[in-house]
Amino acid sequence: MSKINLHPDRYFDPQPEVRRIARELYDHVRGLPLVCPHGHVEPRLLAEDVPFPDPASLLLIPDHYIFRMLYSRGISLESLGIPTVDGTAVEQDSRKIWRIFCAHYYLFAATPTGCWLEHVLAAVLDIDEKPSARNADTLYDAILEKLARPAFRPRALYEQFNIEVLSTTDAASDSLEYHRALSDSSFKGRVIPTFRPDGVTDIAARAWPEEMDRLRAASGLAIHSYREFIAALEKRRAFFREMGATATDHGVNTPFTHRLSGQEAETIFQKALKGQVDANDARLFTAHMLMEMARMSVDDGLVMQIHPGAWRNHNRFIHERFGADKGADIPVHTEFTGNLRPLLEAYGNDPNFRLIVFTLDESTYARELAPLAGHYPAMRLGPPWWFHDSIHGMIRYRERVTETAGFYNTVGFNDDTRAFLSIPARHDLNRRVDANFLAGLVSRHILDMEQAREIARALAYDLARDGYKL
Amino acid sequence: MSKINLHPDRYFDPQPEVRRIARELYDHVRGLPLVCPHGHVEPRLLAEDVPFPDPASLLLIPDHYIFRMLYSRGISLESLGIPTVDGTAVEQDSRKIWRIFCAHYYLFAATPTGCWLEHVLAAVLDIDEKPSARNADTLYDAILEKLARPAFRPRALYEQFNIEVLSTTDAASDSLEYHRALSDSSFKGRVIPTFRPDGVTDIAARAWPEEMDRLRAASGLAIHSYREFIAALEKRRAFFREMGATATDHGVNTPFTHRLSGQEAETIFQKALKGQVDANDARLFTAHMLMEMARMSVDDGLVMQIHPGAWRNHNRFIHERFGADKGADIPVHTEFTGNLRPLLEAYGNDPNFRLIVFTLDESTYARELAPLAGHYPAMRLGPPWWFHDSIHGMIRYRERVTETAGFYNTVGFNDDTRAFLSIPARHDLNRRVDANFLAGLVSRHILDMEQAREIARALAYDLARDGYKL
Amino acid sequence: MSKINLHPDRYFDPQPEVRRIARELYDHVRGLPLVCPHGHVEPRLLAEDVPFPDPASLLLIPDHYIFRMLYSRGISLESLGIPTVDGTAVEQDSRKIWRIFCAHYYLFAATPTGCWLEHVLAAVLDIDEKPSARNADTLYDAILEKLARPAFRPRALYEQFNIEVLSTTDAASDSLEYHRALSDSSFKGRVIPTFRPDGVTDIAARAWPEEMDRLRAASGLAIHSYREFIAALEKRRAFFREMGATATDHGVNTPFTHRLSGQEAETIFQKALKGQVDANDARLFTAHMLMEMARMSVDDGLVMQIHPGAWRNHNRFIHERFGADKGADIPVHTEFTGNLRPLLEAYGNDPNFRLIVFTLDESTYARELAPLAGHYPAMRLGPPWWFHDSIHGMIRYRERVTETAGFYNTVGFNDDTRAFLSIPARHDLNRRVDANFLAGLVSRHILDMEQAREIARALAYDLARDGYKL
Repeated sequence: MSKINLHPDRYFDPQPEVRRIARELYDHVRGLPLVCPHGHVEPRLLAEDVPFPDPASLLLIPDHYIFRMLYSRGISLESLGIPTVDGTAVEQDSRKIWRIFCAHYYLFAATPTGCWLEHVLAAVLDIDEKPSARNADTLYDAILEKLARPAFRPRALYEQFNIEVLSTTDAASDSLEYHRALSDSSFKGRVIPTFRPDGVTDIAARAWPEEMDRLRAASGLAIHSYREFIAALEKRRAFFREMGATATDHGVNTPFTHRLSGQEAETIFQKALKGQVDANDARLFTAHMLMEMARMSVDDGLVMQIHPGAWRNHNRFIHERFGADKGADIPVHTEFTGNLRPLLEAYGNDPNFRLIVFTLDESTYARELAPLAGHYPAMRLGPPWWFHDSIHGMIRYRERVTETAGFYNTVGFNDDTRAFLSIPARHDLNRRVDANFLAGLVSRHILDMEQAREIARALAYDLARDGYKL
Repeated sequence: MSKINLHPDRYFDPQPEVRRIARELYDHVRGLPLVCPHGHVEPRLLAEDVPFPDPASLLLIPDHYIFRMLYSRGISLESLGIPTVDGTAVEQDSRKIWRIFCAHYYLFAATPTGCWLEHVLAAVLDIDEKPSARNADTLYDAILEKLARPAFRPRALYEQFNIEVLSTTDAASDSLEYHRALSDSSFKGRVIPTFRPDGVTDIAARAWPEEMDRLRAASGLAIHSYREFIAALEKRRAFFREMGATATDHGVNTPFTHRLSGQEAETIFQKALKGQVDANDARLFTAHMLMEMARMSVDDGLVMQIHPGAWRNHNRFIHERFGADKGADIPVHTEFTGNLRPLLEAYGNDPNFRLIVFTLDESTYARELAPLAGHYPAMRLGPPWWFHDSIHGMIRYRERVTETAGFYNTVGFNDDTRAFLSIPARHDLNRRVDANFLAGLVSRHILDMEQAREIARALAYDLARDGYKL
Repeated sequence: MSKINLHPDRYFDPQPEVRRIARELYDHVRGLPLVCPHGHVEPRLLAEDVPFPDPASLLLIPDHYIFRMLYSRGISLESLGIPTVDGTAVEQDSRKIWRIFCAHYYLFAATPTGCWLEHVLAAVLDIDEKPSARNADTLYDAILEKLARPAFRPRALYEQFNIEVLSTTDAASDSLEYHRALSDSSFKGRVIPTFRPDGVTDIAARAWPEEMDRLRAASGLAIHSYREFIAALEKRRAFFREMGATATDHGVNTPFTHRLSGQEAETIFQKALKGQVDANDARLFTAHMLMEMARMSVDDGLVMQIHPGAWRNHNRFIHERFGADKGADIPVHTEFTGNLRPLLEAYGNDPNFRLIVFTLDESTYARELAPLAGHYPAMRLGPPWWFHDSIHGMIRYRERVTETAGFYNTVGFNDDTRAFLSIPARHDLNRRVDANFLAGLVSRHILDMEQAREIARALAYDLARDGYKL
């Protein structure tokens, strides 16, 4: 039975001098509140505040980081209880699912998912053994027992986690009813929405007509024209701002930006309403909508985030059987210098504009993104994203970005998670890795301790607040 | 006179704690047999088992890693005894060639070729001095004397090297006569072929007509049609399997995959028979043949390897004068996410299929290959290849691949060599670098020693056996 | 008040054994003269040898590395005294500009600009405090006082810096009057021109007609035809060689090379004279001119440098208001294997040709550039350039290049600067980082100390002299 070892010096360089400095810097920031400006926790979770049902439903079934790894080793998603699109029966026995996970826990060795899981198990759920085939049932029962306690309900955990603000991600037509319920409740936390209109700006998506109907309902506009479409979006942005939003988010295939004339936009929009757009129409329209979102951000002050470069639903079999977000999104080569130019030319020098750019293509960190963020006043760099939100991913990011863009053109950390229990694990890992990076600079006499302490705090707290206008 | 120093801690991190752990992990795997599932040793070498003739013919003339470096510094290939295509005379004096090499030995400082050479010289040939202009003749004589001894004949070395299995790489039409001779002999080793049909699937190659004639002769089929072509390939695969093959290999410009209809394939094939294919025909046909090879692998269970992204024979002068494989192949930017999709869509979820993918474009490790291997059950990642089969190349690979794909979606090590004497050197270097990588994780409390020992053994032995179905 | 700490072990690995070796290797090379084969110091500076006016004019206004970082944080270029194209007034008070810089000095933490600035302040200007809002005026006065002393005039500093040779970068039509003045003067230094004909080879540039007029005046040729254009360039190269030049330099969007027929070249050239070229004409002509420059280098022995991959003047607002070289050049993805092939096919095996290639796309180091330089006798690799001329940039370069190309297919260091006072800082940083890289290899028993000392000297001195034929 292997013990989980949340060693106080974990993730730090083994060289004693670096480790000593890293520990000091980490101690300086470990107690700071968690600022969570980008993520995918459901607001309903906190609004309803009901106990989590069982270990598998809590930790495995919603987390595509975990089940994609199991799937890659030949374990069917059915056996892991992932619901099918057509309702075909899948495994319902949470304990059986948990056993499969435990028997394959060794697959997560040295992955960020593995690091987060150990933190969740040991620091949140008080489990001190690594999952294995042998202890699966014992762990299952122990967790189940915990989840029934009041201290393990979502709001209690929110408090215990020391979260200062939690941004959710919401469709343009979202009623934000759970956000409203939360602000109307006795809950003291700050949970704010983020405006993510991909559903209605991606005119080639199969679900676009229904998404448009939802937008019509939410905006109270009929939306027969491109102009009305823009008006509806502006109205929804105003509503999101009222509800506390400080940012928008845009997931696109490429960061291509391009200004259409009003007439061109109208023509494509009309084709979309008739279900007649082709790939190039959609590409141009998305590029144009990024320009429009930037224009609106200049007006209303919402920070604009762009998340480009994922080939969504790469595995058609999985997509058709289980739907989207099932661990089958694969990054592609991404180009920013040319693609972002029209947007930066129009708004990049505007003091009212704030653009945060993410990438899944690390080759762009030093080549394109750091030089862009190190020049344009409007642009900042988002933290390492998704596959790169990991120990080595964070190190590569700091090493490639800092020398050109400095620390202050970045925006701190995003936990970016649906896994509510992993939020402290993710911030902790990031704070450790950043402390260790700074310790390396101090030990090589590139920074002094006074600078390092200030920067550690900025990376863990200040830059997220400032970058997202929180 | 500089001494060769095969230091027991070579390639390990100098930090004492990391080094101590690395040494322990390395000691755990150093004695494991060598599994060699991909390489270019000639089976004839072991079948005939005659003594190696002299140092230059053994170590230099067959090794394009060595003579390309000398050529890059202005040393002509003629002076190094590389045979010309048209038979123009080149240097025949092995001792003179050896002297040039020794005088330029300093060029290999900090290259993997340099590391391997030192191991070959010191551990295999008992030479304890680094080659230089001054000691060239002494070393030459010392090696020559060794090569005459029975212990330095190929089969004796195979035993001494502790090789468990050695895969060769063979054309589709190969008679496999040396493999047969070996299995008919008293030799205890396991030497198995790999089916590499590039010569007949690359319909644009100048040598295609002759390659097809060889395939006709080997298959006993006339091959007037695409259907007969496929039948011939299937027949040859069956023969390779009978002879022990567990894998196929495919060297392509890009990993583009695409399914042609039977009619389309036939049309292009007929054009090829008439010598009328253009570049696009060839591109589509190669893409289609990858699909066909995957389909056959699902049927016959042979593991499919794809090695894409080398611009072969980049230097026309060298190609025309000296032929292929003369150190003038240069990598190109490679795209996998889109290119492999048709193949993965068709076969990537099939439990009977196993695909091992290699790359010369390291920017794809974290961006495309680890996410693909970390999702599709059929796909695994080949080890760092060719230019990246080096200390820093291996470190980059583990750092970029592990956090997304884990260790168990990779397939251990390939020595991938024609240089028979360097096989133990290459495995040893790899085992050391992997042990050191794991030691870094242990020292940062990311893995415990129990995990690290198990993973070290997997990387050095189990994953190669499992990945290649050996 | 924070002190500047030019620690004797700065930039070295903190592990004591590595640090000890790094220090020993650095001590071996720290006193070697500075070879400066590529840079942008104005020869007029040394020819006129007048005192530097004030801290802002000396350190900030000419250095786009510094003001682009300030601009990225919302500080206007007007407030930093950057002159406008149309002469609109900008800040003239050098002290006010200096105060802004000091108040934002923290932005340069862990950037190479920050490292160089500390060295300039502490080692050249005897300032021992880090700039801040509080000490801005004190530092300003202290520097001003220094600049008035004879020891701080350009020629005195040139001597003090121990510069052996300084190459400038000069237009094809440059009179080289300051170079002549220097060689006619009592000045003992060696200041030589570099032939950079981009102004006349980029036929699509707006300023091309005026550049051509300057070339006509300088060459004494009317240049009505492509043939005369070539003759004018050959004449200017001969003049540059007489004036001491050993190299040419070519800044291009991409390294695309392509041979036009004489007739094709003439046709495009005639269109250019009429102002009728399109983007494709310009692209082909530039590609052809690279071929021509290589041909001329074979004849006259000038070393050819190619600097590709910067999207110049990406920010139109900045370009129109402040002109070129204002920190708004952004790198793009670059391809070498295919693009350089025509040039390497024609001249890459020629012993009279020497080509030095640079990149802003680090993904090409291991993938394309090291394999090319590790094969073609004519090709060498330039040092890490621009955004990558930094501690981590240099480490990435050595780690990605060395194992394939070795050390001897690289050409040492370029300071590449307009900031004359930073020359020793840049060489010192590079010598430290290379010493530390070699120390890492020694500590892992990949090199012995004898090799490491020889290579350290080669990297710091010999390879630059040899690579640039100095």
